[in-house]
Amino acid sequence: MLNFFNAFKRVLVGRPYRNDKLAHTLLPKRIALPVFASDALSSVAYAPDEILLTLALAGVASVALAPWVGIAVMVVLLTVVASYRQNVHAYPSGGGDYEIANVNLGKSAGLTVASALMVDYVLTVAVSMSSAANYLATAVPGLHGTQALIAVAGVVVLALVNLRGIKEAGNVFAVPTYIFMFCIFAMTAVGIVQAFTGTLGRAPSADFEIIPEAAFNQGLMGLAGAFLLLRAFSSGAAALTGVEAISNGVPNFRKPKSKNAATTLLLLGAIAAGMMASILFLANAIGVHIVADPHTEFLVNGVAPPEGYVQNPSISQIASTIFGAGSIPFFIIVAATGTILVFASNTAFNGFPVLASILAKDGYLPRQLRTRGDRLAFSNGVILLATGALVLIIAFNADVTKLIQLYIVGVFISFTASQLGMIRHWTRELRTIKDRPLRFRMKRSRIINSVGFSMTLTVLLIVLVTKFSQGAWIALLAMAVLFVVMWSIRNHYDNVAAELAVDDDASVRALPARIHALILVSHVRKPVIRAVAFARASRPSTLEALTVDLDAAETEQTIADWDRLSIPVPLTVLASPYRETLTPLINHIKDMRKDAPRDLIVVYIPEYVVGKWWEQLVHNQTALRIKTRLHFEPGVVVASVPWQLKSSADAQKYQE
Amino acid sequence: MLNFFNAFKRVLVGRPYRNDKLAHTLLPKRIALPVFASDALSSVAYAPDEILLTLALAGVASVALAPWVGIAVMVVLLTVVASYRQNVHAYPSGGGDYEIANVNLGKSAGLTVASALMVDYVLTVAVSMSSAANYLATAVPGLHGTQALIAVAGVVVLALVNLRGIKEAGNVFAVPTYIFMFCIFAMTAVGIVQAFTGTLGRAPSADFEIIPEAAFNQGLMGLAGAFLLLRAFSSGAAALTGVEAISNGVPNFRKPKSKNAATTLLLLGAIAAGMMASILFLANAIGVHIVADPHTEFLVNGVAPPEGYVQNPSISQIASTIFGAGSIPFFIIVAATGTILVFASNTAFNGFPVLASILAKDGYLPRQLRTRGDRLAFSNGVILLATGALVLIIAFNADVTKLIQLYIVGVFISFTASQLGMIRHWTRELRTIKDRPLRFRMKRSRIINSVGFSMTLTVLLIVLVTKFSQGAWIALLAMAVLFVVMWSIRNHYDNVAAELAVDDDASVRALPARIHALILVSHVRKPVIRAVAFARASRPSTLEALTVDLDAAETEQTIADWDRLSIPVPLTVLASPYRETLTPLINHIKDMRKDAPRDLIVVYIPEYVVGKWWEQLVHNQTALRIKTRLHFEPGVVVASVPWQLKSSADAQKYQE
Repeated sequence: MLNFFNAFKRVLVGRPYRNDKLAHTLLPKRIALPVFASDALSSVAYAPDEILLTLALAGVASVALAPWVGIAVMVVLLTVVASYRQNVHAYPSGGGDYEIANVNLGKSAGLTVASALMVDYVLTVAVSMSSAANYLATAVPGLHGTQALIAVAGVVVLALVNLRGIKEAGNVFAVPTYIFMFCIFAMTAVGIVQAFTGTLGRAPSADFEIIPEAAFNQGLMGLAGAFLLLRAFSSGAAALTGVEAISNGVPNFRKPKSKNAATTLLLLGAIAAGMMASILFLANAIGVHIVADPHTEFLVNGVAPPEGYVQNPSISQIASTIFGAGSIPFFIIVAATGTILVFASNTAFNGFPVLASILAKDGYLPRQLRTRGDRLAFSNGVILLATGALVLIIAFNADVTKLIQLYIVGVFISFTASQLGMIRHWTRELRTIKDRPLRFRMKRSRIINSVGFSMTLTVLLIVLVTKFSQGAWIALLAMAVLFVVMWSIRNHYDNVAAELAVDDDASVRALPARIHALILVSHVRKPVIRAVAFARASRPSTLEALTVDLDAAETEQTIADWDRLSIPVPLTVLASPYRETLTPLINHIKDMRKDAPRDLIVVYIPEYVVGKWWEQLVHNQTALRIKTRLHFEPGVVVASVPWQLKSSADAQKYQE
Repeated sequence: MLNFFNAFKRVLVGRPYRNDKLAHTLLPKRIALPVFASDALSSVAYAPDEILLTLALAGVASVALAPWVGIAVMVVLLTVVASYRQNVHAYPSGGGDYEIANVNLGKSAGLTVASALMVDYVLTVAVSMSSAANYLATAVPGLHGTQALIAVAGVVVLALVNLRGIKEAGNVFAVPTYIFMFCIFAMTAVGIVQAFTGTLGRAPSADFEIIPEAAFNQGLMGLAGAFLLLRAFSSGAAALTGVEAISNGVPNFRKPKSKNAATTLLLLGAIAAGMMASILFLANAIGVHIVADPHTEFLVNGVAPPEGYVQNPSISQIASTIFGAGSIPFFIIVAATGTILVFASNTAFNGFPVLASILAKDGYLPRQLRTRGDRLAFSNGVILLATGALVLIIAFNADVTKLIQLYIVGVFISFTASQLGMIRHWTRELRTIKDRPLRFRMKRSRIINSVGFSMTLTVLLIVLVTKFSQGAWIALLAMAVLFVVMWSIRNHYDNVAAELAVDDDASVRALPARIHALILVSHVRKPVIRAVAFARASRPSTLEALTVDLDAAETEQTIADWDRLSIPVPLTVLASPYRETLTPLINHIKDMRKDAPRDLIVVYIPEYVVGKWWEQLVHNQTALRIKTRLHFEPGVVVASVPWQLKSSADAQKYQE
């Protein structure tokens, strides 16, 4: 089993890398941009749709407000980018928002940010993969209905790619990201030319009537209307999720890390805002209509759309209007969008494991998450992230509109906390710094972070109010659970460290007065003979073989064999009225310890080492239970004397 | 986790019993009859229905043949009972058919019988429980559609009852079995009186027209008709399944075991045959019509029955005709039938674990199945049987008509093999016996067994031919898999025994020349200090502490602590270019062994003993991997030095 698993792992993951290869996995800007930006850029694949379909609840007139919602999202995006440029300079270690909150606002704030970010990383993977599956179904209509399956397969493949190591991942992702950027901007350029020459067509859904919800029969009026506008804005704010990934990923940049990261951030903000504007402008120009449920909200020539009608996303509708449905540019654009979405999940696969490893280093997560795997990627973190995303995709059946209700809460909690932390950071720094130009720059940074703070706090409140009952409570609950789990783990590690710190307690250092060796015997076979030899070689003060009387005939056989082979160790038979090995054994050992509490008892257990997993099932079960139980007895050392059966040789070969 | 599980187990299963209580769990005849007979008796709850619905495929005229099929089943039943009365006298040890086949026909035959019986025990539970769930749905129509869930719950409850021990089980089951017998015979008596006085009514389904299958438009004609009759007979033969349970259960009888078992067997045969005759007579008299699918095979006044129509089983239709639907006797009869079916599964819970334990004793199954649990029941066997039955119930959605197609194959394989074995047995005995009256009795027994053999062989062929493609192939496949698994286990145990038999090989007995002690260190904490003390106390030839350099800062800290505490053992730091603990360690040990292959290396591993399951997850993972790997190295003993953390104290209390 192990052999097979190991061989399989090598095929999937590749040969292990040495530590000194670590420096080679650093990313130049031209690779870092696509690796870290794909998340933010790819959200133009679904954020405009979410804005449109939320507004559609209030009827067709409200949809015209979409560009204005888009502008609001862009303003927030650029503000946040400006703020984060300050962050990466001040905290270049990759701790990102977690580190900033931890240092400036205290441990609880840090842990809150960490929980929020971890949940949002998982959601990034779930949302992006589900959206990618939708685009695949747009291009290949036969796949419609199998989106969840496609998304699951995508997550698994991506996890494997990331287990192979980050450098290879970066190269794979650079080209498609650049293709996607080119596609969107080229499409926009062609669209603008068509608009000026009057040849721009109408979207396939342009003539569909929208049936507004009963509450919005009068359009966007009053409180309900304002609330709907804010909800549209909240969904559109998904475009901001890539920003914090860069601040957590600073250590992956080439030197000078902070400067390169800040430049990449600025580029990212500009490109993402430009794309968002382009898509919303084009969608408005050609009259794209998107609703949550086409069969109940659309009227086509006065009746519901036919049974098999599939609603395509904005980018797909725009591409088919500008270049023609089924044209080569249409397929290239849809393919590039699907690809960028798949690769957007990769941002989370870069960010999550680094964050988990930092948390593990701080004692909030088990130490297994801390170390890099064979290929210098944080393997356990990758597996954890993939598992979480798979659960979400399956639970929500890859429905982007439902998943997006859980999204962004975490990111904005993290944004808000880190901006507040940065304000404190600059205030504290300013207390000691005298240098004038430096003070000026710091004050400027503080103002930028203050603006960022008030902006992100406002958005956080809007997101919480508009999305809580729609599903955001699930994300908040997950964050709370994560917080408690991580807090408990840290607490446990602290307690253990305190309990185990070496102090002046002489009893720990004292050598035991005498050593009593016990050998457990079931049948008299070679492993027992070897255990006797090993026990005798260690020259204990006393030496005794023990067998538990479970079956009279067998016990007699054991005694007879023992005598026949004249083994030079006394054999004691323990009675067992409840046909059970443990209790008589433990009682015997307790009696020995009562007589001499300062002595050490070494229990030799002969064990069979087998090659196949099923052989393990038919051997050693009792030995395992005995060892587990003996561990609870103070002053007892358990010595396993393994006997390698012939079948174990093959298993060992593959373990090397 | 363990504490909770143990406390939970005590609540469910009760306090452990001592060995000397074993004699008290033996059954008197008046208890043994209901415990072992419930299987055979309960089959009247479904066997008549299966006969009727199979015949119904050829239209309403064919249904009148049902009593004749019933008579054929009764003849076989009484022949088999007569044969088995010979068996229990000759082989009273409880090995039953397995032992008879094993001794007289060889190991392969024995193992074949064992596989067949195990599969059939599982099917007994699945069929009886599913049928019981149907009866419950008859009495409480609101439960219709949830039969699978009810059957699953029933299996779980029954498994728990049996884990509590066989004696209590016997008492619980005696009363309902007697009530059921009384119910059926009282109902028959009332029915006969009504028939003679001309007040016997018509069944609710009496006037339903049956649409025959296309092939049987002309009724039961030619080869197809004969085949259908044989298929009806095969399904009816389910009534025979309880018989071998008694022969496997002989050791559970009070002394004289064989005589009591034979008497019980005769009673069982008479009562089962009587019930079968009664039900088929009454069903015929009142015109009960049963079909596989009421919605396609019935016509009520010329049209299909309404959507919500639920077809009730024969006993339920008879009871409602004789006593009135919804009357108190009706509910008592349906409840008694449902109860007896639940308890019929108990026959398998008595038979299966005993058989598994005998097979384990012969080395065909893992030794865990051999021993009785706390309450003197064979706990692992009970759990295995329940699991198998649950899988079948869920896979077939508790559909009795489908499950019954898999049934009986195993029983008749076992019947046939054991009768053939008995013929050989008597022939062999007769060679040495001179005593005339004894020879006469033996010859008589041989004739009875010969008749039984030809009868059961015929039925086996009929069952195989009529049921193979209907589902019996699944049962046969399961038997083949079981056969191969058990054969492999036996083979493995034989090989291991041969490999491990103590021979003249001096190297096993030789004491190692010198002992080298290694102590694994990660952080310098109390458990390490204790491990050092214990290792020093055993006065090895050489003593060395090892730490693997995974993180430069931590390794420096370890070295500093080691010096500061002036621990009197040299500390070696092993480089680890692949950030991994195992390989440097194994290489170090291999080098040591190369230098001195006859020496013994003892590796001391400090371990934390924790109380809660999740604490186990955040500790000791590396220690576990190291121990597993070290077991593959010859000449290495692994000594675990446990350190009991405070939290372990609570866990230990519950483990006692």
